[in-house]
Amino acid sequence: MNYPMIAQILGRMITVEAGLMLLPAGVCLIYGESPLPFVPVILLAGLLGALLWRIKPRDKELFAREGFAIVALSWIVLSLIGAVPFVLSGDIPSYVDAVFETVSGFTTTGSTILTDVEAMGYGCQFWRCFTHWVGGMGVLVFMMAVLPMSGEYSMHIMRAEMPGPVIGKLVPRARKTAEILYKIYIGMTALEVVLLLFGGMNLFDALINSFGTAGTGGFSNRAASIGAYGSVYIEMVIAVFMALFGINFNLYFFLLVGRPKEALKNHEMWLYWGIIAFASVTMAINAAPQVGGFLQGLRYSFFTVSSVITTTGFATTDYNLWPEYSRLLVVLITFIGACAGSTGGGIKVSRLMILGGSARNEIARLIRPRSVRKVRLEGSTVDDKTVLCAQVFFFLYICIILVSALIVSLDGFDFVTNFTAALTCVSNVGPGLNMVGPAGNFAAFSDLSKIVLTMDMLLGRLEIYPVLILFVPRLWKKA
Amino acid sequence: MNYPMIAQILGRMITVEAGLMLLPAGVCLIYGESPLPFVPVILLAGLLGALLWRIKPRDKELFAREGFAIVALSWIVLSLIGAVPFVLSGDIPSYVDAVFETVSGFTTTGSTILTDVEAMGYGCQFWRCFTHWVGGMGVLVFMMAVLPMSGEYSMHIMRAEMPGPVIGKLVPRARKTAEILYKIYIGMTALEVVLLLFGGMNLFDALINSFGTAGTGGFSNRAASIGAYGSVYIEMVIAVFMALFGINFNLYFFLLVGRPKEALKNHEMWLYWGIIAFASVTMAINAAPQVGGFLQGLRYSFFTVSSVITTTGFATTDYNLWPEYSRLLVVLITFIGACAGSTGGGIKVSRLMILGGSARNEIARLIRPRSVRKVRLEGSTVDDKTVLCAQVFFFLYICIILVSALIVSLDGFDFVTNFTAALTCVSNVGPGLNMVGPAGNFAAFSDLSKIVLTMDMLLGRLEIYPVLILFVPRLWKKA
Repeated sequence: MNYPMIAQILGRMITVEAGLMLLPAGVCLIYGESPLPFVPVILLAGLLGALLWRIKPRDKELFAREGFAIVALSWIVLSLIGAVPFVLSGDIPSYVDAVFETVSGFTTTGSTILTDVEAMGYGCQFWRCFTHWVGGMGVLVFMMAVLPMSGEYSMHIMRAEMPGPVIGKLVPRARKTAEILYKIYIGMTALEVVLLLFGGMNLFDALINSFGTAGTGGFSNRAASIGAYGSVYIEMVIAVFMALFGINFNLYFFLLVGRPKEALKNHEMWLYWGIIAFASVTMAINAAPQVGGFLQGLRYSFFTVSSVITTTGFATTDYNLWPEYSRLLVVLITFIGACAGSTGGGIKVSRLMILGGSARNEIARLIRPRSVRKVRLEGSTVDDKTVLCAQVFFFLYICIILVSALIVSLDGFDFVTNFTAALTCVSNVGPGLNMVGPAGNFAAFSDLSKIVLTMDMLLGRLEIYPVLILFVPRLWKKA
Repeated sequence: MNYPMIAQILGRMITVEAGLMLLPAGVCLIYGESPLPFVPVILLAGLLGALLWRIKPRDKELFAREGFAIVALSWIVLSLIGAVPFVLSGDIPSYVDAVFETVSGFTTTGSTILTDVEAMGYGCQFWRCFTHWVGGMGVLVFMMAVLPMSGEYSMHIMRAEMPGPVIGKLVPRARKTAEILYKIYIGMTALEVVLLLFGGMNLFDALINSFGTAGTGGFSNRAASIGAYGSVYIEMVIAVFMALFGINFNLYFFLLVGRPKEALKNHEMWLYWGIIAFASVTMAINAAPQVGGFLQGLRYSFFTVSSVITTTGFATTDYNLWPEYSRLLVVLITFIGACAGSTGGGIKVSRLMILGGSARNEIARLIRPRSVRKVRLEGSTVDDKTVLCAQVFFFLYICIILVSALIVSLDGFDFVTNFTAALTCVSNVGPGLNMVGPAGNFAAFSDLSKIVLTMDMLLGRLEIYPVLILFVPRLWKKA
């Protein structure tokens, strides 16, 4: 492990976070709140970050393992620092709760421990939702886009932070890729803000809801989430934008550079739309008697499906009260998740396509044992290592959910609460069912459960491996 | 596909089943019941079987794909025939229900659609529980042991029917292996019968409960299952025998031929005992306040854990009413299942060891990308194909459970019922939680759900692949 290099990059990260906190501090000033919860954190984090940044590593080389470690450590450190303003402001007195909420923000989960979300001030509310926006595209990818980093090693970091089984560079240089991604991200977010303003939403709400949509996070400043606005227009804008942010950003890049055919022939995207269509329609039929007809059902079901499959977690209705088919479908699409290379979480559609392709080949091999078949994705062969990586990912994903649910069950809440709490945190959706349903929250859990679920959110967002290797003693040996 | 050969082997199978039905017909005579429900089935199945058996295939060669197809078709045909006596006797008027019950028997699941199990006559009760015993070690393995089959292809059949990721022959010839397995199986079953008689159980109950234990099935002729006897001795005999039948039979072979060291160094067995110990103790602590102390808790929890991990499904208490930790632990060990090469179902401990080893290697590879590591099991390297097969199995296992639960949810029962009904059927345990808990049954489901769950039981018992390839059109083409 190249410790000086890791410390230096962590220093940059902390400095960037201190810089980002100037925004909520500014919001405090605009709305006449005291910026005091942010000021000491900005100063101390800025100082610590600057000190670490001054480290001059003799050896600048980074390997994949260091990329993973940097990403996992950065996310943990950023969350530990980012949680402090919530405690200082008194909005979240318990530090464990504040870390849960901050990790939920950065990982774009959107699970909350707040019982009265509307009581929070503007500054903290802004910071809470802004973490979604920062975490969505990746904190380190953001840093790469704004701070020049030399060396090809930055690709290791990018690969470790970006979701999905196969990460391609858009352009040869990682920094340039990060820049393009952020430009698309900012552009789409800005467009959503404008459309929401057009629907009569105030600027503050338009901003934070767009942060939540763009990062596929789901924090809201209203107890009834997006349902609070009672506007079909606003619901549909957000539903469509959630779905758009769940698509691989590479496709937007293709559109931008005038290669729409390449964007349109993406199989993952079509399967993703297919799942959204199937789930929305069958859920609308299932819920129709309860919500007053198919069309009203479709209004709610499309929003719900788009929210859950993109792992955002906004809600316009309490689908926890819907018939069992709808509830189970919500759980199923919580597993599935969005497309690779998007801001969404979950297992990812393309990873499931790899697993499905591998299963199809395996069955074919039983019929013709000597045939050699490779898994194919988007017209190319997927190499065996990537297939294996996806399979192990799936196995670990299920194990993490089941073991977490078992630990959480010690609190004594009901089965569905325990199971869906673990599932929704690992998948970064936000709400689950029953006590943690869209009308509920995570406040009642013990600190042990909250810590386990906080770990789950990080494991889910960073796609397991970067977090797990922190626990391998060999990682920490000097090379 | 070698159709004449498949038809001939199916003919043998049907004849064997007709022969096996002589036993319940005899039981009817002993207990003064009419053997009429069995007589026409014996005659017609005997005739059909004999006709098919007369087919003389010119080409006697069988490939792996035919082995899979024969196994899947045999199990389906045997169940369709085996269900008829239940309808004729009037015990189970609906044929769909009767097939569910028969498949539940042969697959050693033990899920029942009977609401009043004690109303069934002796003959049908015997047949119902006897299917467990026949299905436990494998119907085709049984046939091989009693009917000489020439050719090395019998190994393909055996491999397709025996549970577990790696099937080794005990001795070079498949027929001899089948014979040894059945001798051990009969010997252990007989020992259990004797020990139960010694505990004051009547001969009929001792027989059918031993069938249920040996096949790790779980059907009982009492509404309160094994709890009905109210005897700690009987409970412990059955709990220990369940656990013993969940161990790889190869280990008993090693004991028999005087190689106890080889049996004792089996890692899968030790992990299996470890899981039983951990689960029993923590469940006893968790349930202690409810059942009157730790020791009483251990009495119930050891029985429950042994019953669930071996996928038997006997019960001595309604653990559905236990605290949430215990309920979730039951679900977890339902997934795990017994050892490979035993009569138990589930994912299997050794398959999880392969998956765990693969995950460990994958994480190690992130730290040292160029290191080449192989999964090891019982001191040997597991080849990549077997690892891949286990991973695809795990993926399909989870998918089957989730999709089945979704279809079952259309009936409108609660989430835990739907999820655990699918899980318990795929894992061949028998009871789940809530409505399908140890005090419940599967009677209230729609025919659609019952058909889906019947498929699940077959998929679970035959370890997915043999059933799935029936749906591949290419299988049915002539070679």
